[in-house]
Amino acid sequence: MKLTLVSIGINSHLDMSLRGVEAARNADRVYAEMYTMKMDTTLTELAELAGQQVIPLPRGGMEEQGGELIKAAKEMDVAVLVGGDALSATTHISLLLDAKEEGVETEVIHGSSIFTSITDTGLSIYKFGKTVTIPFPEKGPVDSVLRTLGENHEYGNHTLMLLDLNMAEDRYLGINEAIERLFETEKFPRDSLLIGVARLGSMFPTIKADTAEALSRYDFGDSPHALIAPGRLHFLEEDALVALAGCPRSVIDAHKVQGEVDRLIAKYTKGCRKVLKELRNNELPASVTEDQVKEMLEHTERYLDDAEYYSGEQKAVALTSVAYAEGILDALKLLGLVEFEW
Amino acid sequence: MKLTLVSIGINSHLDMSLRGVEAARNADRVYAEMYTMKMDTTLTELAELAGQQVIPLPRGGMEEQGGELIKAAKEMDVAVLVGGDALSATTHISLLLDAKEEGVETEVIHGSSIFTSITDTGLSIYKFGKTVTIPFPEKGPVDSVLRTLGENHEYGNHTLMLLDLNMAEDRYLGINEAIERLFETEKFPRDSLLIGVARLGSMFPTIKADTAEALSRYDFGDSPHALIAPGRLHFLEEDALVALAGCPRSVIDAHKVQGEVDRLIAKYTKGCRKVLKELRNNELPASVTEDQVKEMLEHTERYLDDAEYYSGEQKAVALTSVAYAEGILDALKLLGLVEFEW
Repeated sequence: MKLTLVSIGINSHLDMSLRGVEAARNADRVYAEMYTMKMDTTLTELAELAGQQVIPLPRGGMEEQGGELIKAAKEMDVAVLVGGDALSATTHISLLLDAKEEGVETEVIHGSSIFTSITDTGLSIYKFGKTVTIPFPEKGPVDSVLRTLGENHEYGNHTLMLLDLNMAEDRYLGINEAIERLFETEKFPRDSLLIGVARLGSMFPTIKADTAEALSRYDFGDSPHALIAPGRLHFLEEDALVALAGCPRSVIDAHKVQGEVDRLIAKYTKGCRKVLKELRNNELPASVTEDQVKEMLEHTERYLDDAEYYSGEQKAVALTSVAYAEGILDALKLLGLVEFEW
Repeated sequence: MKLTLVSIGINSHLDMSLRGVEAARNADRVYAEMYTMKMDTTLTELAELAGQQVIPLPRGGMEEQGGELIKAAKEMDVAVLVGGDALSATTHISLLLDAKEEGVETEVIHGSSIFTSITDTGLSIYKFGKTVTIPFPEKGPVDSVLRTLGENHEYGNHTLMLLDLNMAEDRYLGINEAIERLFETEKFPRDSLLIGVARLGSMFPTIKADTAEALSRYDFGDSPHALIAPGRLHFLEEDALVALAGCPRSVIDAHKVQGEVDRLIAKYTKGCRKVLKELRNNELPASVTEDQVKEMLEHTERYLDDAEYYSGEQKAVALTSVAYAEGILDALKLLGLVEFEW
C-alpha cells in the first residue's frame, strides 16, 4: 500500500520516465492532476501508458482531494500523475506530509521540469537565484517580483519568472502581458535584457532574448510561457544567448547588472569624493554650542529610527542609515565635543 | 543529421524518458558520457534500452570528444546519453554551441536531476539561490562556498552544495569530509542546520537533517552525496524537515538565518543606541580647530578608500564605510565647520 507521485515531465506523456510508467502500470489506481500546468497530453494518452483508466482529479486538485488519495492509498497502491516535476508545487509536498502522518508509504518519481529546461537558453543552472511568479492583474501587484529581481541582481544571479495560469478558465498569462505588468510599475527599465521561453521541452519551443520592450511585442505563440531575467553573464552564456536565443549582441553589450547595494556604494562614494574636493572650511577655530550638539544627536536618532524601519525590506537603505549615524557620533567624539566608548 | 543530447536522469537508465529512449533507438550512433556523475547503470543496460551498441566517451568526455561527435552528426543521427539532466553541465552547453556553429541540428531531451530532486527534502524549489560545489582539498579552498552561502542567506534562500568527484579515480567527496572542509575555515558554525542527501532518486536514498556537527559523523552510505544549507524556513518546510529528513525540532528552532547586511544593521544599531544613551557632553560651547577638521577629513578619506577596496566582494562592509563617511561630512557641515553641497 503506497502513494506514488509520478512526474509526467515538462511537456507530454512522452517525457515520463520508464520508472514512472512502470509505477503507473503497477498501481491499483491511477489519478492525474491536470490543473497545475498546461501539458500537451490527454487522459486517453496517459491511460494508454498506464494500461488502465486514469482518474482526473477535479479542479481543487491535491488540496481538496488529498484526504481521498491518502484514504485510497491505505487500501491499495495509488499513483498520482503530475505535470512537470512532481514536487515543484508546495501542495504536493503537503500531500506527502499528510500521507506520512497517516502512516502511508510514499514514493516520488522525478522528471523533467521548467527548472532544468531553462538551460535551453544557454544560461548556467548554477547561477539561478530565487524563482518568482508574475500574477494575473486580479491576483495582485508585482512588487514581490521586482523585489526578487533586485535581490537576485544583488549577487548577479539569474531569475526565472513563471507566469500565472488559471487552467479551469483556460487562461495563461502570456509574455507580452507579463512584461506590460512590469512596465506599469515604472520601476522596470524598458531596455532590460530578458529571455522569453514558450513551450519549453516541446518539439517546437520558442526561445527569444532581447530588450523587454522588443519582447513585449514579440509573438511567442501558444502557452505555456515563462520569462528569465539574466544576471551577470559569463562569456559562454553571452555566446549562447546569441546562438540559442537570437539575442542582438548590442543588447548583451548594454546589459548591466547592478544590485541596490552596488548602486548605493557607487552613488555615495561619488558624492563624498566630490564633497571632499569642493568643500571649504569656515573660519576656524570655531565654537560649537550645546544646542548644536543636541540637534546633531536628535538628527542621529532619526536615522537610527529609519534604520529600524527599513531593516525588513530595504536592507541596503537601513544599513546606510545606521552607518551614517555612526559617522556623526564618531565625528562628535573625535572633535572632542562628546565622550563615549563604542 | 542531428545531434541529440539525451538525459539519462538522476539515478539509473530507468529514469530516462520515453522520448529519450525513442531518440536513442532511432539514432544511427549512440554515445554515453560516463564521467560527469555516478550513475546506477551500466553500458550493457543502456545498450539494451537503445537497442544498439553504446559507445562510452573516454575520460576527457565532451571537452575532448566534442569535435568527433559533431563530425559524426554531420553524417548521421547521433545521440549522446548524459547522466542527470543533459544541460546542467557547462561543457554540454559548449557542445551545443559548437554544433550550431558547424550547422548541425541539435536537440535536448531533459530529465530528472539533483536540481529538482532536492525537493525530496521538503524544501521549496522556488527558494533555492545560487548553487555551489565543494571541491576536493587538492582542488582549492572553500572560500567561494562560504561566500555563496552568505549571499544566499542575505535573502533567506536555500543553498544546494554539490560535492566534488573524480570518476576516473572512482573518488567522490562524501558529506562527512565536505563538512570537515567547511569547519576547517573556522567560519562555519558547527551548530548550523544542514541537510545531507545521498543517492537521491534511487530506491534507497538517505535524507538526514541535523546540525553540521552531527552530520559530520553520520553514516550516509554510498555516494553520490550532496548537502543543502537551508535559508529561512516556511513552517511547512520545517514540518517537512522533521517528517522527511528526521530533523530534531530543537535544531530547527535554533536555526537562524542572518545575512551580513542584517548582521551589520543589528550590530551597529545596538551600538549607536547604547552610545546615545550613555554619552556625556564635554564642556560646551567648545572650540574646534583647523587641525581637528583636517584630521576628520583625512579620516573620512580613509573610509572612502576602504569602501572602494571592499566594493567587490564585501559589499556590506563597503556600504557601511561610505555611509559612515557621509555621516562625518554631514556632521562637519551641520556644526558649521565646513561648507559644501551634496
